[in-house]
Amino acid sequence: MKSSRAEFALSGGTPSFSEAIPFGQYHVPDEAGYRSVLERIEASGYFTNHGPLAREFEASLAEFLGVAHVVLCTNESLGLSMALKGMQVDGRVLVPALGYPELVESVVWAGLEPVFCDVDPETHQISPRILEAAAQDGVGAAVIMEMWGNRCDADGLMEVAQRCGLQVLFYPADGFGSMRGGRQITRPDQTTLFSFQSTRLLSTMEGGCLATDDDHFAAVLRNIRSSYGAGEPTAVPVTANGRFSELQAGLGLWGLERIDSSLEHNRALCDAYREAIGSAPGLTIYEVSEGVQSNHQCLVLRVDGERSGLSRDDLLRMLEAEHVVASRGIGPCLPEVPGFRAWATGGRLPVAEQLAHELLLLPVGSGMSVESASKIGGLVASAGQVLS
Amino acid sequence: MKSSRAEFALSGGTPSFSEAIPFGQYHVPDEAGYRSVLERIEASGYFTNHGPLAREFEASLAEFLGVAHVVLCTNESLGLSMALKGMQVDGRVLVPALGYPELVESVVWAGLEPVFCDVDPETHQISPRILEAAAQDGVGAAVIMEMWGNRCDADGLMEVAQRCGLQVLFYPADGFGSMRGGRQITRPDQTTLFSFQSTRLLSTMEGGCLATDDDHFAAVLRNIRSSYGAGEPTAVPVTANGRFSELQAGLGLWGLERIDSSLEHNRALCDAYREAIGSAPGLTIYEVSEGVQSNHQCLVLRVDGERSGLSRDDLLRMLEAEHVVASRGIGPCLPEVPGFRAWATGGRLPVAEQLAHELLLLPVGSGMSVESASKIGGLVASAGQVLS
Repeated sequence: MKSSRAEFALSGGTPSFSEAIPFGQYHVPDEAGYRSVLERIEASGYFTNHGPLAREFEASLAEFLGVAHVVLCTNESLGLSMALKGMQVDGRVLVPALGYPELVESVVWAGLEPVFCDVDPETHQISPRILEAAAQDGVGAAVIMEMWGNRCDADGLMEVAQRCGLQVLFYPADGFGSMRGGRQITRPDQTTLFSFQSTRLLSTMEGGCLATDDDHFAAVLRNIRSSYGAGEPTAVPVTANGRFSELQAGLGLWGLERIDSSLEHNRALCDAYREAIGSAPGLTIYEVSEGVQSNHQCLVLRVDGERSGLSRDDLLRMLEAEHVVASRGIGPCLPEVPGFRAWATGGRLPVAEQLAHELLLLPVGSGMSVESASKIGGLVASAGQVLS
Repeated sequence: MKSSRAEFALSGGTPSFSEAIPFGQYHVPDEAGYRSVLERIEASGYFTNHGPLAREFEASLAEFLGVAHVVLCTNESLGLSMALKGMQVDGRVLVPALGYPELVESVVWAGLEPVFCDVDPETHQISPRILEAAAQDGVGAAVIMEMWGNRCDADGLMEVAQRCGLQVLFYPADGFGSMRGGRQITRPDQTTLFSFQSTRLLSTMEGGCLATDDDHFAAVLRNIRSSYGAGEPTAVPVTANGRFSELQAGLGLWGLERIDSSLEHNRALCDAYREAIGSAPGLTIYEVSEGVQSNHQCLVLRVDGERSGLSRDDLLRMLEAEHVVASRGIGPCLPEVPGFRAWATGGRLPVAEQLAHELLLLPVGSGMSVESASKIGGLVASAGQVLS
């Protein structure tokens, strides 16, 4: 706990940490864990293209998610493009203005035109009301991004989507392991896209999967991914190289076996942050919606610079000086990304624009101790009063 | 050596190998090798997105290839799509009818229309003469696939391309480590795409890279790949998630350090095959063009069933019974792949069609001994006379 200006590293004090605290999850194997993965690859002689570990990982994921079909793919961006191609979307694709650039890229690579909509100020997601307002002429599908380990009101969204004739893809980018209504998958009758990128609770370094109960659409996805694992030939508009390597699958199987303890560790870190930050003025901790069990994927703060005394970017600089790597979580609001402006045809997007300047994600993950979380939380809580 | 029908496993004899001899390269680390890779990843705390190992691998590849810029990407298929987008091709994309389906898929994902041409019967590649004949109206670019560790007549091809106003991308899918005119890269002023898929001499399980001396085009490629490593912002038509993980980079660095011994081992296997097969009737061993130093990526046989007594598919069945996994090398001729027929607008493609039924690739790679190669070569050489 630093209680005077001089103690903060920004003012010449000693940094709180001698080594940088990285941002992100990084639930990766130790040496014995890697050895067990590599021994299995060595024994099978398969290295990629729907080998035995990939098949086992698909089956384990299907069981964990409670879904009939899981289709692994190289990374989540290609998975999103594959799903949109398979959906044969007729029209533009609605995407939230608060999201990752990959979201937009995947729509464009699928040969479709994105269009941005705003997000809900509480959930940071597309709500049924927003979907209805944005379902203007020419929108054929919506990508519902589920943020910060929260999950969306899928049933409410599907009611609107069906009424407005929209197809929907659910994309809990960082939501693997969180649940709503006891369900891991967003809507079993639709398609849910998960990411296994290295900052996720379940990591294959890069990778992702599509999950659905729909037998026909699963066959379409497998045929689009092509090569081994395509299963029965099914007419598809295009095929792709969406191969998942055995090393990715081995890392995934290792992580899935340990998902409960990874989640518990993150929960303990988030609890420590909450306790340390408490009700510091101007800092609001993001909470998942009622009925959602979070995966504690991240600790997200919304910083009201007027009330806290320091802006989000001031806090990032303070933490950097203390050797803590925090994150804006998301870059600029998507319409501000170079090349993306043309797709902001629906006017201003005030909530997404404001959130993009106010969000601060604190480090969580396997490499961090609860003590570090308490210390970082204390820095964030006191900095506003001491440094402003 | 089996000299009577009854000795062959197809006729009830004992298989030549008690365990299956896999097809492919698989130059992958042993346990100590993996440990060294993992220790570096652990120490850096980076797992993907242009981390320190990916940067080092790019630099090492640039030095090895003798080229100014190397841009790593998730897999070679995405690399091909990225390059075609960056080239802003105006027109259709000429691809050889003898090639991998991924070749066609990548053109389609780049939003372009492929068109097939035939290949040269000696090199199995597009020759300058074929390029000139196929450069009909509406073709804007050609993907020159370099086959079986051979390299193409790049200067001759570029002369035609420039005269006909075509852009060119060189794609030695399995040519990493082979050279023509002392050069690893096909043409430094153009772009060469390499594959690091697990069956290649240099493997990252999945992965690839684009290499060029062209500063501007390299910047375009880096910006298309996007995220970290994009470098100075450059106007590009689209961005993509082409991230290369640190594990891929670590495997690549390990393999690149040992490329000479991997190549030497393959050379010894190919020599053993040549000696065992000799001048068996109807079997022609593929030879690289004059002036090319092969990487001995594969031993390719062309099987004349009339003369040898057994067809290519007969030989595959014979080998399978002996527990040897050989390969057709390439699936059906590309216009015969479901969904691809519409792009065969240039009429019949007799050479590619015939080769697709006559090629047989024998196993090569790190897991094989010279004795096994001799034994397999002997089986192939004698089967025609004994079994036909």
